[in-house]
Amino acid sequence: MTENRQIIIDSLPTDRLEPGNYALRTVDAPAPGDGEVLCRTLAITIGAGQRAGLQGSASYAGAPRAGIVMSGTAVARVEASNDDAVPLGSLVVCPAGWQDYSVHAAAKVRVVGEGDGVGDPAHHLGVYGTNGLTAYFGLFDVGEPKKGQTVLVSAAAGSVGHLVGQMAKIAGCRVVGVAGGEAKCRLLTEELGFDAAADYKSPSFRSDFKEATPDRVDIYFDNTGGEVLGSALRRMKVGGRIVCCGVVSQYDTSKPAPGPFGVPGLLINFRVRMEGFLVFDYAKRYPEAWTRMREWVEGGKLVPKQDVFEGLEKAPEAFVDLLAGGNVGTRIVRVAS
Amino acid sequence: MTENRQIIIDSLPTDRLEPGNYALRTVDAPAPGDGEVLCRTLAITIGAGQRAGLQGSASYAGAPRAGIVMSGTAVARVEASNDDAVPLGSLVVCPAGWQDYSVHAAAKVRVVGEGDGVGDPAHHLGVYGTNGLTAYFGLFDVGEPKKGQTVLVSAAAGSVGHLVGQMAKIAGCRVVGVAGGEAKCRLLTEELGFDAAADYKSPSFRSDFKEATPDRVDIYFDNTGGEVLGSALRRMKVGGRIVCCGVVSQYDTSKPAPGPFGVPGLLINFRVRMEGFLVFDYAKRYPEAWTRMREWVEGGKLVPKQDVFEGLEKAPEAFVDLLAGGNVGTRIVRVAS
Repeated sequence: MTENRQIIIDSLPTDRLEPGNYALRTVDAPAPGDGEVLCRTLAITIGAGQRAGLQGSASYAGAPRAGIVMSGTAVARVEASNDDAVPLGSLVVCPAGWQDYSVHAAAKVRVVGEGDGVGDPAHHLGVYGTNGLTAYFGLFDVGEPKKGQTVLVSAAAGSVGHLVGQMAKIAGCRVVGVAGGEAKCRLLTEELGFDAAADYKSPSFRSDFKEATPDRVDIYFDNTGGEVLGSALRRMKVGGRIVCCGVVSQYDTSKPAPGPFGVPGLLINFRVRMEGFLVFDYAKRYPEAWTRMREWVEGGKLVPKQDVFEGLEKAPEAFVDLLAGGNVGTRIVRVAS
Repeated sequence: MTENRQIIIDSLPTDRLEPGNYALRTVDAPAPGDGEVLCRTLAITIGAGQRAGLQGSASYAGAPRAGIVMSGTAVARVEASNDDAVPLGSLVVCPAGWQDYSVHAAAKVRVVGEGDGVGDPAHHLGVYGTNGLTAYFGLFDVGEPKKGQTVLVSAAAGSVGHLVGQMAKIAGCRVVGVAGGEAKCRLLTEELGFDAAADYKSPSFRSDFKEATPDRVDIYFDNTGGEVLGSALRRMKVGGRIVCCGVVSQYDTSKPAPGPFGVPGLLINFRVRMEGFLVFDYAKRYPEAWTRMREWVEGGKLVPKQDVFEGLEKAPEAFVDLLAGGNVGTRIVRVAS
């Protein structure tokens, strides 16, 4: 039998996640049944939202428990197929989890193109995956940016944020990013076209942030919640919108903080709309987003960033580092080529 | 000269407001200049939002200071006029403040009808005043209720809440009120047509609230913020809306609490839209609301409640009692008849 390495949840984190919350085990690779395919994991993506999935019932990701393979989306190669719709050799995106091999009903995997300009198959996990789709529908459908407006993005160098900011530039907006550390802030303004950036870890953040938003903020794309949300609430323009996409500031703990001061008072004073969304609700419109994002990427207007760890065994470390703000763009763990 | 009693802010409250934060003084009544009218206050309305005005710059009501007449809206009789548009004897609504007499530019007062079915002139401060207009535009324009939906209202026996709930019934909704105390809850269900009510002061509030919202909540009209908002966030339906109207739980203090847990996380999980509004933004559409509310009141579908203190000198006490949740419907201080 072929060996299948799996990374399992060994214990649920009680405070900050640690690599020791995971364990590696080796089992036999599964065999596909009728209508199923065997997928060889090539690369896994890790998102901060998965940490919320470890908090239990509070999250949309469902209840976690020790002893199961850590969940995760992968790009994979079909190595055995019992369904003609997904032939041997297909490149697919599937909910593989953190392991070398997984079996899925053929209808549950998405066959993706290759060799047609996408480049690295891992882009199907980033700009053409949940991150890109989240950026697209969150910004355009929930945020509704108009030319000339100011769009603020938190976790702006992150998997979703770095795409949101670039899309907002494409929409003709002034774009301000909040990120942790000087290096990320420089990346935003020097490489990704952001108009301004503020480092939330800097002691001068308050004044830097104010200076970066002289005309206040029309649309705040919030990936963090917490203190950055609190700061943003005070800089909203009358009639502004807050797109609630993620709460990364509150994921890596079992004791989330209360909401920011000024909720709901500042929403009233500034007549602000704050709206949460989940990208899965837009599934029927994914093709529209893929078409537009492909045009932007091929035209050089949208630059997807990846941030790669090599080897399945590095996944726990890659996740912990991500939660500490270590990533730029989509975090990828390469498992095989 | 005619004497003019005034209630002035003697000191800004540092924690809970007390009657001692105000002082009564007597001055000469003012004389109207060119284009001005002299108004004799008949009744003043007091709303919890005015407490926010004493917190300083955090509020839309502007910065308060000791030594000035306490602000407030009144219904008044014109006792001298230097503008033909507002003749002597007119009944008007004006920003009189807490005093017997005030002078205003004629263009700044609103002449209101009388003897045409409105009944008590003080209704111009309640159902036909800011309270009614706030209920109307907040519910219909921000909340957008559809027949059969569940509408939840906090401070449901309050000046705005008791009207919101009745309007939601008119819209064909199931209406649930949260209020403080059994007596108020009984009023809601037995007199005002609410389908259910839950007493937030009861030790069984959590289970009572859950029982009162078996199908969860489509629209939450939030007058309180704080813990009731926190409870409501956990009972929203996917795609629900929260209408942010007031934050009475946070007004009577100089140290407002942080926002509720679950902001913004629960907004994401449940794809909830939370939106603040100020009624003044709808000024051009007030006539539409007055027309519809008159029909409802005359048809017996909308029952405006008043809660009256007699005498200008009682205004501070009426305010403090209101902040402690003492009122049912619009709080009125009658000054003269």
